[in-house]
Amino acid sequence: MGSIDILWVTLCAGLVFLMQAGFLCLETGFTRSKNSVNVAVKNLTDFCVSSIIFWAIGFGFMFGVSYEGWIGTSSFFIDHSKTDWSYATFFIFQLMFCGAAVTIISGSVAERMKFSSYIILTVLISGLVYPVAGHWSWATLFDGDTNGFLADRGFYDFAGSTVVHSIGGWAALAALLIIGPRLGRFTDSHLHSSFIPSSMPIAGLGTIFLFIGWLGFNGGSTLAWNDQVGLILVNTLLSGTAGAVSAGVLGFGVSNRLDAGQFMNGCLGGLVAVTAGVNLYSSPLAVLVGFIGGMVVFSFEELLEFFQIDDAVGAIPVHLGAGIWGTLAVGLYGDLELLGSGLDRISQIGAQLLGIGTYGLWGFGVTYLVLNTINKVHTLRVTAVHERMGLNLSEHGIKSIETPPELTDVKERTI
Amino acid sequence: MGSIDILWVTLCAGLVFLMQAGFLCLETGFTRSKNSVNVAVKNLTDFCVSSIIFWAIGFGFMFGVSYEGWIGTSSFFIDHSKTDWSYATFFIFQLMFCGAAVTIISGSVAERMKFSSYIILTVLISGLVYPVAGHWSWATLFDGDTNGFLADRGFYDFAGSTVVHSIGGWAALAALLIIGPRLGRFTDSHLHSSFIPSSMPIAGLGTIFLFIGWLGFNGGSTLAWNDQVGLILVNTLLSGTAGAVSAGVLGFGVSNRLDAGQFMNGCLGGLVAVTAGVNLYSSPLAVLVGFIGGMVVFSFEELLEFFQIDDAVGAIPVHLGAGIWGTLAVGLYGDLELLGSGLDRISQIGAQLLGIGTYGLWGFGVTYLVLNTINKVHTLRVTAVHERMGLNLSEHGIKSIETPPELTDVKERTI
Amino acid sequence: MGSIDILWVTLCAGLVFLMQAGFLCLETGFTRSKNSVNVAVKNLTDFCVSSIIFWAIGFGFMFGVSYEGWIGTSSFFIDHSKTDWSYATFFIFQLMFCGAAVTIISGSVAERMKFSSYIILTVLISGLVYPVAGHWSWATLFDGDTNGFLADRGFYDFAGSTVVHSIGGWAALAALLIIGPRLGRFTDSHLHSSFIPSSMPIAGLGTIFLFIGWLGFNGGSTLAWNDQVGLILVNTLLSGTAGAVSAGVLGFGVSNRLDAGQFMNGCLGGLVAVTAGVNLYSSPLAVLVGFIGGMVVFSFEELLEFFQIDDAVGAIPVHLGAGIWGTLAVGLYGDLELLGSGLDRISQIGAQLLGIGTYGLWGFGVTYLVLNTINKVHTLRVTAVHERMGLNLSEHGIKSIETPPELTDVKERTI
Repeated sequence: MGSIDILWVTLCAGLVFLMQAGFLCLETGFTRSKNSVNVAVKNLTDFCVSSIIFWAIGFGFMFGVSYEGWIGTSSFFIDHSKTDWSYATFFIFQLMFCGAAVTIISGSVAERMKFSSYIILTVLISGLVYPVAGHWSWATLFDGDTNGFLADRGFYDFAGSTVVHSIGGWAALAALLIIGPRLGRFTDSHLHSSFIPSSMPIAGLGTIFLFIGWLGFNGGSTLAWNDQVGLILVNTLLSGTAGAVSAGVLGFGVSNRLDAGQFMNGCLGGLVAVTAGVNLYSSPLAVLVGFIGGMVVFSFEELLEFFQIDDAVGAIPVHLGAGIWGTLAVGLYGDLELLGSGLDRISQIGAQLLGIGTYGLWGFGVTYLVLNTINKVHTLRVTAVHERMGLNLSEHGIKSIETPPELTDVKERTI
Repeated sequence: MGSIDILWVTLCAGLVFLMQAGFLCLETGFTRSKNSVNVAVKNLTDFCVSSIIFWAIGFGFMFGVSYEGWIGTSSFFIDHSKTDWSYATFFIFQLMFCGAAVTIISGSVAERMKFSSYIILTVLISGLVYPVAGHWSWATLFDGDTNGFLADRGFYDFAGSTVVHSIGGWAALAALLIIGPRLGRFTDSHLHSSFIPSSMPIAGLGTIFLFIGWLGFNGGSTLAWNDQVGLILVNTLLSGTAGAVSAGVLGFGVSNRLDAGQFMNGCLGGLVAVTAGVNLYSSPLAVLVGFIGGMVVFSFEELLEFFQIDDAVGAIPVHLGAGIWGTLAVGLYGDLELLGSGLDRISQIGAQLLGIGTYGLWGFGVTYLVLNTINKVHTLRVTAVHERMGLNLSEHGIKSIETPPELTDVKERTI
Repeated sequence: MGSIDILWVTLCAGLVFLMQAGFLCLETGFTRSKNSVNVAVKNLTDFCVSSIIFWAIGFGFMFGVSYEGWIGTSSFFIDHSKTDWSYATFFIFQLMFCGAAVTIISGSVAERMKFSSYIILTVLISGLVYPVAGHWSWATLFDGDTNGFLADRGFYDFAGSTVVHSIGGWAALAALLIIGPRLGRFTDSHLHSSFIPSSMPIAGLGTIFLFIGWLGFNGGSTLAWNDQVGLILVNTLLSGTAGAVSAGVLGFGVSNRLDAGQFMNGCLGGLVAVTAGVNLYSSPLAVLVGFIGGMVVFSFEELLEFFQIDDAVGAIPVHLGAGIWGTLAVGLYGDLELLGSGLDRISQIGAQLLGIGTYGLWGFGVTYLVLNTINKVHTLRVTAVHERMGLNLSEHGIKSIETPPELTDVKERTI
C-alpha cells in the first residue's frame, strides 16, 4: 500500500471503531434501564477482550499461512515494531472488523445472559469462529498467494455481509436458542408496557454512529485509496437511507405509526445488505438492494416473533437476515466483470448460496455445540431473581435509578 | 480534484455527517423527555428522506445545467458508477449539506408538529427550497461555466451562513408562525418547571459534535486540500469558542448564573457567524465575528420571547440570527481581494444585503405558502391531548419513563 | 511538514477534539444526576475558555522564543492569516492538547466546586501551568533551535503521559486537597446508595470516544505521516485494551463482580501509561505497560480511598497514577536508540524521575499556592445547602428530573 492508501485505511479503521460506540448506544438504548449498564459493559468488554485475543491468535488463524485454504497457521502474537507500516495498518483494520462481528451478539442476548458466559462467547468468536470464517473468504486480502477455500470457489463478499454480519447473527441465533427468551417476553399480555426501552434517542444516536462508521467499514475494504471509493460511499449512503425508508413505510402501513426501532433497524439492514457487493452496483441498484434489505429486516422480525425467539435488539433480522439477502444480491445483480470470479450469473448465485450455507453451518453449528456443552456445567443464563432485579444490580452492583435530587433535598431540608 | 483533495472532502463529508449526531443530541437534550423519541426519530428520518430526495431531484436543481442562473435542469437520479471520483465525492459532500439545512428545522418545531407534517416539510426543503437557493450562490462550485444569479451579482457565502443556516432558519420561522407556540409556553407561570429539558448533558454532547463537524463543514468547503484550510480551521475554532464566551458572559451579566443552553447556542452562533467568510478574516477578526455572533444569538432569543414565537431549541437565533450577521460581516470585514468579486466595500455590503433579503423572501415565503396551504387540509399540529401526552406516546407508542426496576422488583418479590 | 503530514495532524487534532466529547460523557456519567448539567457545562466551558486563553497567551509561553529553556516569550495572539499552513495546523493540534490537560481536572472536583472557581482554575492551567510545563519538554517540537530545560536533560515524554496527563492530575490533586471530599463521601454508611452514577452507559460511551481520540493523541504526536504511526496505533490499541482487562480481572478478584467504573478507568489507565513511550515499545511490551497501567489505576484508587481524598471520577488514578508509571516505563523499557537522548538506561531512568518530580512540584505546587490564596477571598466550594440541592439547580437553575409525563398527563386528564 502507498502512503495515502495507508492513510485511508487508518482513517477507516477509526470509523469502524466508532461503530463500537454505535453498538453501545443502540443496544443500551433498546434495552431496559435495569440492564443498561450490563449491556454497555458487555460492549466495552467484548471489544477489549476480543482485541487481545485477535492479536494473540485470531489474526493468525485468519491471515496466517494457509493450511489447505481452511485455516491460517502463523502470525500469532505479532510484534508490529518488526512488521512494516502496511501490515500494521492492515492488522488494525482487521482487528476492528473482528470487534464488530463479536459485538453484534451482545444485543441479542441482552438482559439475561451472564456476564461470565458472555466473556466465554467473546473468546470463542474472536479466537475461533470469526477468524476461521474470515480465512475462507479473505485469506488472500493481504497476501495474494494464500487463498481460502470459499474464495477459491468464487464466493464473493466484499466487506462482510456474511463474513462479519451473518457470522455474528448466526452465533447470536445459536446463543438465543440455548438461553431462551426473557421472562415475560411472550407470556406477558402487557408486553409493550413491560419492555420499555431505556432510551430511544440514544439508540438513534447509535444508529447514526453505525451509519458513519459503515462508510469506513465499506470504504476501507478496498484497502486502497482509489476511484472505487467514491461509488462505494455513495452506494452505502443510498442503501442505508433506502432501508430506513422501506422499513419505515412498511411498518407504517401495518401499524399506522412509525415504529422508531423498526426504522433504525431498517437503516442498518440496508447497510448490511449493500455491504457484500457495494462496489458492484449502480446507484439505483444500491437503492433497490437497501430498500429490499429494509423489508427483509421487517419480515425477519415477524418471523422471530412467530417462532418466539427473543432477540432483545433485533440484531438477527439486521445482521443475519439482511446479511443473507445482501450476499445473495451479489449473485443476482452484481457486475460480474468487476466481481472477477469468472463465473456466469447462475454459477455465481450458486457460489453465493454455497457461502451462505457453509457460514450458516459453521457460525451456528460451532457456537451451538460449544455453548450447549458449557451450559451443562456453567449455566449461561442468570437466575430469574437476578433477571427481575436487573443485571445492572446483580452483575455490577449498580442501581439504575436514584431518588430525584429535588425530592431528597426537600426531605433533608424539612427534617 | 486531485487524490488528496478528494480524501479531504470525503473526510469532511464524514464530519458533516457527525453534525446529524450533534443535532439529534442537541434537540433531544433541549426538549422534554415525553417528546424526546419523536425528536430523535425526526432527526433520523429527515436525514434518510432528504438524502433520497436530494439524490433524486435536489442535486439536479442545485448543480444541474442552469436555466438562466435560477435553477438546475439536469443530473437527476445520478448513477455514480458512471461518474468520476471527484463528482461522486462532491455529491456526497453536498448531500450532507442538504441534510444539515433540513435538520435545523426539526428542533424549532419540536414537541407539537405532527410526524407526517414534518416529512412533508422535509421533502419540500430538500427537494425544492434548499437546492434552488443553493443554485443561486453555488451552482458554479463544481462546474465553472454555470453560475447562479446571486453569485453573478457578487454575493458571497463561503460555506453557508445564509445558504444553509439562514435558509433552515427562515423555513423554521415560517413553520413556527403557522403551528404556534407549545401549550403553556407563554401562559404558564411555572414556566421553568414545566419545560424541563430532558438532558442538558446530552445537549452539551451535541454541541461538541456540531463543533467538530463544523471543522469539516467549513474546512471542506474549499473543495481542495490547500493552504487556506489551516486558517479556516483556526478561525472556526476561535469564532465558536468566542461565541460561547460572549453569550455566556452576557447571560451571566443579566441573570447572574450561567444558562447552559445560552452558552451552547452562543457557541453555535459563533460557528454560524464565521461560516460565510471564514477564509477572509484574520484570526482576531474571527474572534470578533464569533463574539458578536454570540451576542446576536442572545438578542434574538429575547426578540423571539418578546414576540411570543416559541422556538423549542433556539434554532432561529442560532441559524437565522447569527447567519444574517455572519453574511453581513463578510461585507464589513472580509478581505475583498481574497473574496474576488471585484466589488468595493460598499457594493459588497450591498450584495450581501441583497442575498440576505432574497434568501429571506424565498426561504420564508415558499415555506409559509406551502405549509399554510397544507395546514388547511391536513393540520400540521398534533391535538392538544396528544401534545400533553407527549409525542413519544402519541406518535410512536413509546412511554418515556418506566417504573424504577428496584421498586418493581421489591414489589414482585414481596408479593 | 508536507501536505500529507498536515492532513494527518489535522485529522488527529479532530480526534483529540473528540476526547472532549469523551470527557463530557465519562464525567457526567460517573457523577450524580443532580450535578450532571454542571459537569457538562464545565467541560464545555473549559474547552472554550482555554482555547481563547491558549491562543492569547498559552501558545506563546509554550512555543515562543525561549528564555533560557524556561518559558516562551513570543507568538501571543497569533494571526494565522499571516502564518503558514504547517504552523496553523501545529497550533490547532497543540490547542486540543491544552484543552485535554485542562478538562482532566473537571471530573475530580465535580459535585462541589463552584462554577466561578472552576473558570479561574481553567485560566490558570491553560494560561500558565500547562504551557510552561509544556515548554520544558516540547519547546523544540516545531522549532529545532529552541529547547526546554528538561528535554535538554534527556527527559522523554512522547505524547504527554506526564506533560498533559500528570500535569492535569497534579492540578486536580491540589484542588481536591483544598476543597475536600463531597458531603457524606467518607461518613455515609450507605455509600453505594448515596453516590449513584447518573449513567454508566454514557460513561462507557465516553470511554470509547476517549479511546478513539487517543489514536489521534498518540498518532498525531509524530507531527508527520510516517511509518512510526502504524506501530504507535497498534501499541495504543493493545495497551488500552490490556489496561481494561487487568483492572477488570483485578477488580473481579477482589469483589467477585466486574466494577464497570474500574474497567473503564483501567482502559484509560492503559492508554495514559503507553502514551509517553508508545513509539519505543514492541507490541508485547505495549501490552505489558498497559496491563500494569490498569493495575496502577486500581491501586491508586485504593490509595485515595485510604487517604480519604475524594476524586469524583477517578481522574487522579488514571491521569496521575498511570501517567507516572508510563513516564517511568520509558526509562525501564523504551528502545534507547529510538529515544535518541544518548543516555544509558540508568541515566535515562534518572532523567525520567527528574521529569516526574519537577512536573509534580510545578503542577501541584503552583496550583495549590494559587487556589489556596484565592480560597481565602473567594471560597472555591459551594455551600452545603447548594451541594445537597445539586449544582444543576444551584448554579444553572435546571432541575434534573421531571415528573414522568404519563403521570402528569393522567392527572391533567382526570382533573
